[in-house]
Amino acid sequence: MDDRDHSFGKHYLVEFSGCPAEKVSCIADIREPFLEAARLSGATILESFFHQFEPRGVTGMIFIAESHFSLHTWPEAGYVAFDILTCGVMFPERAIEHLKQSFQAAHVDIRVFTRGFNDQ
Amino acid sequence: MDDRDHSFGKHYLVEFSGCPAEKVSCIADIREPFLEAARLSGATILESFFHQFEPRGVTGMIFIAESHFSLHTWPEAGYVAFDILTCGVMFPERAIEHLKQSFQAAHVDIRVFTRGFNDQ
Repeated sequence: MDDRDHSFGKHYLVEFSGCPAEKVSCIADIREPFLEAARLSGATILESFFHQFEPRGVTGMIFIAESHFSLHTWPEAGYVAFDILTCGVMFPERAIEHLKQSFQAAHVDIRVFTRGFNDQ
Repeated sequence: MDDRDHSFGKHYLVEFSGCPAEKVSCIADIREPFLEAARLSGATILESFFHQFEPRGVTGMIFIAESHFSLHTWPEAGYVAFDILTCGVMFPERAIEHLKQSFQAAHVDIRVFTRGFNDQ
């Protein structure tokens, strides 16, 4: 890292598609796989929060010492938007693989961005 | 939107730098500007959550009907990582401008990404 690079972490934007609706509709479907994904990544979990949309669909968030995990599901479309923002040493790929399996996602798309700023 | 475009929303990754530490150290500094930013954007606020790091630094999250706002502060570096994920009609620029003023940020960097998937 040179003097002009102020990187604070990596942001993973992950799209899961082709998920069976029954895997991603309710908090009860989501909670354990999501928390287990955070554990597998090596994150230090602080708190977790979930919101149930009616008739179905979930927002989930895990505060971690290294920043956060978030997740939003669109069961009718078989789609889940998943993020990992980490400023520490973690293994995000393990979390992504676990959720892919848990949600039975047919496709996964992953983009990774550096967070921080340049000297200006 | 053509048949092969499955866009679910826009994700704004925003970096604030040059923020005075006393503007971004504690939940008491963050809570109202953050909630007001969400209101100004036109979001429908569902719930909000905050975590205080010691000796200073905050994680904040707002669940909105349109997805979420998140924020992480590094007061010692004058840096704040701010995200808006929206799947509805909103005015994210109003939220960004409000936080820039509230945090007295010297610089703002904004990147916008489409969330969703292509037919595969």
